[in-house]
Amino acid sequence: MMPIDTIQKKDFPDLVKYLEKCWREQVEKRGTGAVSPLGLNRPIKDIIDEQLPEGSQSLNDICVQIERLVIPYSVQTSHPLFLAYVTPPALDICVLGEAISSMLNQNVSFVNLSPIGTAIEEVVIKWMGSIIGYGATSCGGVLVTGGSVANQLALAVARRSILGQEVTKKGNYVEMKHQRVYCSEHIHRSVYKAAALIGIGTENVSPVPANHRHQINVEDLQRQIDKDKSENKIPTTIIGAAGTRAIGAFDDLEALSKIAKDNQLWLHVDAAFGGALRLSWLAPNSLQYLGYADSVTFDPHKLLFVPFDAGCLLVQDKQRLLDTFGSEGEYLERSDPPGRDIADFGMDLGRSLKALKIWLAMKYIGAKAYGREITRLLKLARQFESLIKSTSEFETLIDGESIIVCFRWKGEAKSTDEELNNINGQIPLHLRRKGLAFINPVSINNKIGLRACLSNFRTDKQHLEELLDYIRECVES
Amino acid sequence: MMPIDTIQKKDFPDLVKYLEKCWREQVEKRGTGAVSPLGLNRPIKDIIDEQLPEGSQSLNDICVQIERLVIPYSVQTSHPLFLAYVTPPALDICVLGEAISSMLNQNVSFVNLSPIGTAIEEVVIKWMGSIIGYGATSCGGVLVTGGSVANQLALAVARRSILGQEVTKKGNYVEMKHQRVYCSEHIHRSVYKAAALIGIGTENVSPVPANHRHQINVEDLQRQIDKDKSENKIPTTIIGAAGTRAIGAFDDLEALSKIAKDNQLWLHVDAAFGGALRLSWLAPNSLQYLGYADSVTFDPHKLLFVPFDAGCLLVQDKQRLLDTFGSEGEYLERSDPPGRDIADFGMDLGRSLKALKIWLAMKYIGAKAYGREITRLLKLARQFESLIKSTSEFETLIDGESIIVCFRWKGEAKSTDEELNNINGQIPLHLRRKGLAFINPVSINNKIGLRACLSNFRTDKQHLEELLDYIRECVES
Repeated sequence: MMPIDTIQKKDFPDLVKYLEKCWREQVEKRGTGAVSPLGLNRPIKDIIDEQLPEGSQSLNDICVQIERLVIPYSVQTSHPLFLAYVTPPALDICVLGEAISSMLNQNVSFVNLSPIGTAIEEVVIKWMGSIIGYGATSCGGVLVTGGSVANQLALAVARRSILGQEVTKKGNYVEMKHQRVYCSEHIHRSVYKAAALIGIGTENVSPVPANHRHQINVEDLQRQIDKDKSENKIPTTIIGAAGTRAIGAFDDLEALSKIAKDNQLWLHVDAAFGGALRLSWLAPNSLQYLGYADSVTFDPHKLLFVPFDAGCLLVQDKQRLLDTFGSEGEYLERSDPPGRDIADFGMDLGRSLKALKIWLAMKYIGAKAYGREITRLLKLARQFESLIKSTSEFETLIDGESIIVCFRWKGEAKSTDEELNNINGQIPLHLRRKGLAFINPVSINNKIGLRACLSNFRTDKQHLEELLDYIRECVES
Repeated sequence: MMPIDTIQKKDFPDLVKYLEKCWREQVEKRGTGAVSPLGLNRPIKDIIDEQLPEGSQSLNDICVQIERLVIPYSVQTSHPLFLAYVTPPALDICVLGEAISSMLNQNVSFVNLSPIGTAIEEVVIKWMGSIIGYGATSCGGVLVTGGSVANQLALAVARRSILGQEVTKKGNYVEMKHQRVYCSEHIHRSVYKAAALIGIGTENVSPVPANHRHQINVEDLQRQIDKDKSENKIPTTIIGAAGTRAIGAFDDLEALSKIAKDNQLWLHVDAAFGGALRLSWLAPNSLQYLGYADSVTFDPHKLLFVPFDAGCLLVQDKQRLLDTFGSEGEYLERSDPPGRDIADFGMDLGRSLKALKIWLAMKYIGAKAYGREITRLLKLARQFESLIKSTSEFETLIDGESIIVCFRWKGEAKSTDEELNNINGQIPLHLRRKGLAFINPVSINNKIGLRACLSNFRTDKQHLEELLDYIRECVES
């Protein structure tokens, strides 16, 4: 049998040709065809049932499986009516970036193990820091898989910063007092998962009531902190949202920052998609205070149009990350100058060069063009809301302030909320079965409706008009 | 200015051509040239100092930067004398896989959001489960970035399994007793980072003394558990190593499994690179008991030759993952049948289709060819040790049992250990400065020597003979 390298060299020209073919097909297909295949059907079951291959399968057989199974059964996130999540189409240049990263297979953990990977990650962190409003000199950050891990690391950095070095050694048993974390009742559920993981428990996340615009009620927040202090608990962290998941609402970050300072707490802001809105002159007002936060979650795989995985935790003071995650290992060389080994900024000791695709995207697009596109998406969201209000069969559920539009079909006849909930709840599945649109249900003030995330640079007003037509047809049939 | 999509379509043919060019250059370069550029030199500083680009840079300018900076300043992990870590060259087919994954940009969190991505991840988990010795029906797992995160999730699953649902809600404050984790004094430092993150603290990791073969001393382990119980602490987890980082040693997994059962503890085994040795008939004996572990860390980016990031946590009973990480979100659809949403198996709620590159690798290579190559690497390690012993200037520091060889230059004259430590400690940097080899120092019983990880399918005996010559020249000059 041939050694691995010989097999590879033989197949290599076919691989490149095949990649080009897939790429061209994808480009042609974009925006047509079913947005989303459904169900556990036969071909997918065949994939799951396959046993560990003993022999080598031919490149040709493998490519046939990619063409017949992988591509057709993928959800088409680049479709103009894929609106279920803030998951835009990936920029082509990032596909190049990921291919080159894989080829180079750098471990971007230690500066000596990947001098160039470290430099590229440092510069994209600096660029993202400047987008969200941090100064260039002292801010830092680390690339992670996504917002969930960024929020989780943020809770760890907050804990370490408030409680000191003892907490690294003794854990949450320090002083044997309950640590407390505060956030809006509308916060992303990853915060609860993170609280469970870092061992403070979901019950020590205090969901503060929000106002009708889904913003943390700051009086309630202060009251909750006072109550916890009086009960001998240790408040550590306030988590604000710059773009809640349901409606894309923005907490009053100036007020949260003041409360954090007054009470000596850490302010973390989940700006996974919201942070990038700062590139637009139409950004929600509250975002001007984003740089007041001690740490910020910012996902390049959202409005920077970079493919998964590309998340990021940014911190105002880089030293806080080193304090939390830095450690010494016996066989590891240290960076020179010290403090540049990215392993000391987060949890991963083996880390890909995922910074490359972000670097390429930011150079290829540039801040201005990003800002222009994000402005277009913000305007599109307001236009879509106007369009909805101008019809007799639809209504908005809330006035949005970012790229998320929540609305429902209400029909012309007077229906009860229960009837409307039932109808609207079924619309997403019908649209997906027909392959027309992928949109998620949402519940606001007990009204079930539809939630459209406008994050795709291929979606325009005409597509949204079509969406309303599809919904009309769907309800009527 | 042009919209993003128009820029992309214009540049698209050039992108594919460019990727092909990079690829061909890489293939030609493999095994030649400097294995590792060093230092914070001018071109790298230029990258770090660049400000956030305002305008769009041309594809041509960007490609020039890739050619002049990114590729030449990368550490050549595919070089036959890159021996510093278990970081093999990436299989070409995985480059294709990552490119296609990026293109499709699937979020493999919920089965309805990526039916095909979920299926592919499920089947590679099953295949890896069968490699490490788990039964196909009840085992489960989740792909993560690497071994560090796998170990971290394992500690969380162990805690949840031993302490029950209360720990998710109340955190480590349950019963206000210290939880305890046991491992060899030679365990990977990621375990300490994980203990800090999950809030039990590094002091609650108990490093058990090891024997001369770097295996946990089981009597000491039982003694430590008894002591902790008598002090009203809660033992939860034993962490065994199937391949320690320094010398690639294997704990007595049968004995650890017995102690775990007797004391009702969770047994986790870090088999990040060691697990794949089961594909070879030369696998260390202890590995036949790997399937006894409740959970196992297994990194496809190690001996499956998949590029970063590709780590995996495997568990004997899939339900344990769901118990630990499953939760309900208001806007999320649930899988049908339930229990297939990968978001409920780990921490990420946005997850790439990294399973694709693993799936392609395992199909393209197949279990037999993997086994043959791993057998070759194991034999090569023993041959290298024999070669070292046959010389008058080198000696091994310990007899290895896997793919790691620890040795030192001792010269012909009688030198003190202090002199030899000094000389051997300087060899790695000299070899890297000359671009000849990338090898790490290691310290065993206070002797500083060199550690060669034989994980590259392009490394053969001749390369290792060259390495000894390079070291001779280096010491003499």
